[in-house]
Amino acid sequence: MVDILHRVGVENASPEKVYDTLTTVEGLSGWWTDDTRGVAEVGGVLQFRFPAGGFDMEVVDQRPSEHVKWKVVDGPQEWIGTTVDWRLRPEGENTILLFKHEGWKEPVEFMHHCSTKWATYLMSLKSLVETGEGAPAPRDVRIAYPD
Amino acid sequence: MVDILHRVGVENASPEKVYDTLTTVEGLSGWWTDDTRGVAEVGGVLQFRFPAGGFDMEVVDQRPSEHVKWKVVDGPQEWIGTTVDWRLRPEGENTILLFKHEGWKEPVEFMHHCSTKWATYLMSLKSLVETGEGAPAPRDVRIAYPD
Repeated sequence: MVDILHRVGVENASPEKVYDTLTTVEGLSGWWTDDTRGVAEVGGVLQFRFPAGGFDMEVVDQRPSEHVKWKVVDGPQEWIGTTVDWRLRPEGENTILLFKHEGWKEPVEFMHHCSTKWATYLMSLKSLVETGEGAPAPRDVRIAYPD
Repeated sequence: MVDILHRVGVENASPEKVYDTLTTVEGLSGWWTDDTRGVAEVGGVLQFRFPAGGFDMEVVDQRPSEHVKWKVVDGPQEWIGTTVDWRLRPEGENTILLFKHEGWKEPVEFMHHCSTKWATYLMSLKSLVETGEGAPAPRDVRIAYPD
């Protein structure tokens, strides 16, 4: 088992504000993909769609301002059954966001790609909260060609 | 043992051109840190310095246009003994760059930070090759406060 790990600090933002970007369709649409639908509550399923495909995530845990966890129930074969875990904590006026995409079976090349791509989406989330503007798909940062 | 993995595609660039950014002091200074010194050949040591500290890397392998590997011989305690591995391959007119920072003992919070930070530096390297301009320290992309 190998994991993708990331950490960003969101400046001048409460954990509550960051939590909203992970637990509302509007918030998720602002940094990950314009085409986000579904039910952002425990037991609900969120559908994230991109030009090249998409992911369905079952919401496994949501603890306000602290923790969000999703389980991938549909998407690329390598993603199915993996989990995406978000932990938030305040640090002064800021919020630390810890990210884990866990349960990959093998460190395949696609996992390398997803690791870099997640980093750019976390920077998009940070920008959304700090400036009001993220870079969700299809206006996402390109890390290759196609992405 | 846990690893940091990344992948970027550098557009309209040969593996040789990307290899130069990993094996010359001038190239390394263009995307990682302005303050890069040392000897970029097998058995040599490269010194990378940042406002907050730095790393000394022994060059373990350099195979032109294909592979570069460094071993961390000085720096933060969590980094010492870890290795940084770069693999290049052509893909049409482009170059695929696969990155691994291996040998972390524990998935500590600092490792989460380094994973995201490496992603931004790989994007800096990609930008350096594609546009002539990277974002090395101290002009690096901030992922938190301080970084």
